[in-house]
Amino acid sequence: MDTLKKMMLDMGKAAQVAARNLANATTEQKNKALIAAARILRDNKAQILSANAGDMRTARARGLTGAMLDRLVLDDQRVEDMAASLENIAALPDPIGDVMASWDRPNGLNISRVRVPLGVIGIIYESRPNVTADAGALCLKSGNAVILRGGSESTLSSRAIHKCLVQGLAEAGLCPDSIQLVPIQDREAVGELLRLVGYVDIIVPRGGRSLIERVQKDSKLPVMAHLDGICHIYIDREADLDKAVAITVNAKMRRTGICGALETLLIDRAVAQSHLPAIMSALEEAGCELRGDKEVRKLDSSVALAKAKDWDTEYLEAILSIKIVGGIDEAMDHIAAHGSHHTDCIITENSATAEKFLTLVDSAIVMHNSSTQFADGGEFGMGAEIGISTGKIQARGPVGVEQLTSYKYKVRSDGRTRP
Amino acid sequence: MDTLKKMMLDMGKAAQVAARNLANATTEQKNKALIAAARILRDNKAQILSANAGDMRTARARGLTGAMLDRLVLDDQRVEDMAASLENIAALPDPIGDVMASWDRPNGLNISRVRVPLGVIGIIYESRPNVTADAGALCLKSGNAVILRGGSESTLSSRAIHKCLVQGLAEAGLCPDSIQLVPIQDREAVGELLRLVGYVDIIVPRGGRSLIERVQKDSKLPVMAHLDGICHIYIDREADLDKAVAITVNAKMRRTGICGALETLLIDRAVAQSHLPAIMSALEEAGCELRGDKEVRKLDSSVALAKAKDWDTEYLEAILSIKIVGGIDEAMDHIAAHGSHHTDCIITENSATAEKFLTLVDSAIVMHNSSTQFADGGEFGMGAEIGISTGKIQARGPVGVEQLTSYKYKVRSDGRTRP
Repeated sequence: MDTLKKMMLDMGKAAQVAARNLANATTEQKNKALIAAARILRDNKAQILSANAGDMRTARARGLTGAMLDRLVLDDQRVEDMAASLENIAALPDPIGDVMASWDRPNGLNISRVRVPLGVIGIIYESRPNVTADAGALCLKSGNAVILRGGSESTLSSRAIHKCLVQGLAEAGLCPDSIQLVPIQDREAVGELLRLVGYVDIIVPRGGRSLIERVQKDSKLPVMAHLDGICHIYIDREADLDKAVAITVNAKMRRTGICGALETLLIDRAVAQSHLPAIMSALEEAGCELRGDKEVRKLDSSVALAKAKDWDTEYLEAILSIKIVGGIDEAMDHIAAHGSHHTDCIITENSATAEKFLTLVDSAIVMHNSSTQFADGGEFGMGAEIGISTGKIQARGPVGVEQLTSYKYKVRSDGRTRP
Repeated sequence: MDTLKKMMLDMGKAAQVAARNLANATTEQKNKALIAAARILRDNKAQILSANAGDMRTARARGLTGAMLDRLVLDDQRVEDMAASLENIAALPDPIGDVMASWDRPNGLNISRVRVPLGVIGIIYESRPNVTADAGALCLKSGNAVILRGGSESTLSSRAIHKCLVQGLAEAGLCPDSIQLVPIQDREAVGELLRLVGYVDIIVPRGGRSLIERVQKDSKLPVMAHLDGICHIYIDREADLDKAVAITVNAKMRRTGICGALETLLIDRAVAQSHLPAIMSALEEAGCELRGDKEVRKLDSSVALAKAKDWDTEYLEAILSIKIVGGIDEAMDHIAAHGSHHTDCIITENSATAEKFLTLVDSAIVMHNSSTQFADGGEFGMGAEIGISTGKIQARGPVGVEQLTSYKYKVRSDGRTRP
């Protein structure tokens, strides 16, 4: 067996031992490890920033662009945010051991369904070094061992952060292999991780489309997909103009780089003339570039013409595609054909129309008269999240500690046999 | 594209269209289809039995053994049982549309979590023709489109049963592609089914270990595994002898061919002399062959010596392996090393010992003083089941209609934007 394969297999085996211990760690132990790691992160801020400076030098030398550098860079505030996030995760309720349901059966059995960890989670992510802390902490809180595989750009930063997490585990008397970081950047390490059947229970990829698609293609393990957020707002013929303007501008421009940001606006032909000019000028005033279909350009010839691929693009920038449609059915067809099952919203004062949209649009989050920027575990009251699952298996929508769990059935009786 | 690949892709596309319609079918429509299919099955009993006779002739010519022939054969009663099962599934509550939770947030949002179907399910099964009806019906009830791929032995029987299901769909005005049966037996059809990424949401294999392992190895889609039931009973030093005898005999001998049947008995050395003779003679009286470790043979030299592979064998026959252990920890270590995470039981009068076992043994179903033969969706009050999931992703334990669902978040507000 080659060295890399053996290294990954050893990590898998170590994770499995750690998972068996962690499944029965107390809430106090897990929280102690998280709070200690937060303190250690703060204490090691200088080392972390110095490691990050090294990553930044390499990244600049490789010619990385502004947005990528911004995701990679750490400063005092970002280290403090990471530490605070660990403390917030410590403060969340522990899902493990929750009795989800309990019932008595006519056959004399008492059955209860109890929440347990999934086991071992593999997380593959790109440049943001804070994912090392966040993902490690969410897995720990939910009683799962984790194998983290960060992006090559953030190697040194991730190692420095990971070291703090492991020290936190040690202070709480937990197995250091509870949170492992793949120590080398060989691309084949990901391939081996994706083949650890029997050692890793689920893979969570976080990053751009090419990463996710590679993982989905190569994985022998279940994947909790976090695909694009190609989010839509449909402005119905019974939409309130003020709400339409405010929500559209907020959904697109509050933060353009998050997965819940609006990417395509659909509007009913019946209100295109009355509503669209005000919406478009508010967007332009906020600095948004508009790309419309032919009909939109008839209303405002200064708008660029959207190309076919615009309808399938997650811009993550101050760009919006706009299309005029014949009504809710055409809007829903467009979303079914071009959406990514993430977050889609209808703006209307007609509650029957809204219910139709909420029921028929097949997305993790469907909204009525609300900004798509609310698509976030924190806003939902679920605490920190690893991301928004756009698949339907295991978990859908924001993935917090509860979504990283499974359950078991405990069956008790006084000696019953089955007739 | 070759013909087979195109055929499977077309089935995937048709299933996806059917799934979109089915997700919004009413409970009445789905029940109407199930009840009609039950009637049509009864009306077509002669044709079904004649098709089955054809399958039986081929099977005998191929030299299939007694147990396999028994799984394949249909008679009046088995057709009636299939029809009754369809009616029972119609009588189950419809999980789709259930509001699982609903809450208001300080940000002004009302959020509700609503149950939706998974989408398209692929079910790959072996010889039992009744799976065609059961699996098709469970998927329909849970609003999922399904692609069924039955075993080659049951080709004619499955086709005849499938025809009745499709007629039931037609009577209820539902898309006939809601329940599709792969029409040919080419082994590569399974391979293509496992590669229908984007068309099929989850694969459920039902059958022997080699089928499941092939599916897990080749699938590009999430797999809900139904692996072996290597079920254990551990008889603790504080076990009540009467319960130990009654439960062990029932767990092993009530029906030896089901996945919840006992396969290995572990007993604490402290009570081996006092408890084991009575247990062994009751088992032998019931017709069970015993295979023990060396210590067991010291107690009773007429018992055969268990080989290493016995501890990893799901007999599904009247054979039991027996091992004497040093206590609960050694028992749990044995279960961790040799079990299949299906169903395991402790017999003890000490409730603290029982709780330790229930918490630490990592199986879908863990039991105290109860027969492992109760491992069944019906006994749990969940209605009909597709099987018992031994994995932790998506569903664990009995898989009924609720376990074949996902959810979406419906978010409503009066025009809220995110600060």
